[in-house]
Amino acid sequence: MRNLRPIGVFDSGVGGLTVVKALRDLLPNEKIFYLGDTARVPYGGKSATTVERYTLEMTYMLVEEGVKTIVIACNSASAVALPKLEETLSVPVVGVILPGAKAAVATTRNGHIGVIGTRATIKSGAYEKALRALDADLRVTSRACPLLVPLVEEGWLNDEMSDRVIARYLEPLIREGIDTLVLGCTHYPLLTGAIERVLGPTVKLVDSARNCATAVQALLDRQSLCAPAGTSGGLEVALTDAPDNFLRVAREALQLDVGEIQLREVLHGAPSAL
Amino acid sequence: MRNLRPIGVFDSGVGGLTVVKALRDLLPNEKIFYLGDTARVPYGGKSATTVERYTLEMTYMLVEEGVKTIVIACNSASAVALPKLEETLSVPVVGVILPGAKAAVATTRNGHIGVIGTRATIKSGAYEKALRALDADLRVTSRACPLLVPLVEEGWLNDEMSDRVIARYLEPLIREGIDTLVLGCTHYPLLTGAIERVLGPTVKLVDSARNCATAVQALLDRQSLCAPAGTSGGLEVALTDAPDNFLRVAREALQLDVGEIQLREVLHGAPSAL
Repeated sequence: MRNLRPIGVFDSGVGGLTVVKALRDLLPNEKIFYLGDTARVPYGGKSATTVERYTLEMTYMLVEEGVKTIVIACNSASAVALPKLEETLSVPVVGVILPGAKAAVATTRNGHIGVIGTRATIKSGAYEKALRALDADLRVTSRACPLLVPLVEEGWLNDEMSDRVIARYLEPLIREGIDTLVLGCTHYPLLTGAIERVLGPTVKLVDSARNCATAVQALLDRQSLCAPAGTSGGLEVALTDAPDNFLRVAREALQLDVGEIQLREVLHGAPSAL
Repeated sequence: MRNLRPIGVFDSGVGGLTVVKALRDLLPNEKIFYLGDTARVPYGGKSATTVERYTLEMTYMLVEEGVKTIVIACNSASAVALPKLEETLSVPVVGVILPGAKAAVATTRNGHIGVIGTRATIKSGAYEKALRALDADLRVTSRACPLLVPLVEEGWLNDEMSDRVIARYLEPLIREGIDTLVLGCTHYPLLTGAIERVLGPTVKLVDSARNCATAVQALLDRQSLCAPAGTSGGLEVALTDAPDNFLRVAREALQLDVGEIQLREVLHGAPSAL
């Protein structure tokens, strides 16, 4: 029965566990198979061509796991590879960009939205495109914040140093008058406290992880793919390289039971039939 | 003629250009072929198994370029893969660990040496092993500094924020009384100014890039592989992914003419004959 199959969640590393956390809270009956490409993490500084190729390889691996839908829990991969995935894959795909953009449009009062993310995400212009498609009159100010992922991975989540780095990245956006900020990277929700300290109470945060989970719920409903009520959900985690320090950070910060980690080899190129 | 062949230099990204700079200064007659695995950078947080596999793939690509010797201008790769490379490759190999360790032993007065590097380098214990093999009575204090590479790649080379991060990492080593610090990562020479500001005048720095270049010179002399006097040297740079921001940072900081960048696809697995 297709409904009993797992939801496949993909991220370049383990940052996408913030999306898993949101999915577990919202859809406790669903099984989740998480695949993190820790052998090639991070994607955020790599070229669009390379990010697209890696994302295709990883999602093919998820299809081979028999997942019923695929969540691209990585902003860099969503920003760059989603059109290609929608055209190639036999299962429905949800990214993090459109749900985040919709939530931002619903949140802003003054029509000026800020977006932060990795270099790959910001360079792609994917949030601007999605936001402007929803409302052509919006003003969007974006900024790449390459140090935030390493700060999260170092575990400096509530730390004066992180506050200073965040202030440096965000002050120009605050000065320009944004009233809404999209956290366009799945690592960033772990810095929510620090980001709120810098932004103060007037700028609202949009967390792409939580909005992505809501979009997955809507998709499963629409396609009658929900696991039956009473089914016990669960989480399996597979990585392409042995887990490092950050898995511990994420597990503790998210209070997520990830169980035994499986190791998978990257399948290079696309399998013959999908 | 074998002497006219290039020296192959490998790094996980473009940090190894600090070694290239030292080689160009010391051996201006030599041709250098540089290969950076920017499609999978960084290696420093990845497992030993994965770092070894990637390093083998990259050095095989250098062998196919017809290089006369290979320089592993990456501490993480040297720390983990050098024994395997020495056993597998048909050309002589020089890493960065042993030259750095020798220079540190020659520098220390009180016999207490500090080592900083990536997680992979520090976890391997390669510097401790090399240092203790040279002098069993040495005291060695090591620390992984995962944020320094991202700070360098962001271009914050002379920046109050970098000084603060460095101070946090180094203060415990200073308190414990090191008098010599090995920069066990090819990115770190770009932070020399900031590191010296934190250390003050009593702790001496050992830069593995410069010492590696001296070891290459000695190897070429020993094996009669030097390019003839009067030969014009040069530099070719190939990367496995399109260059990003950091190449600009490195080029400016090092005043290095890298010319046109070539793009190479990773060859997975070992070619049949080497």
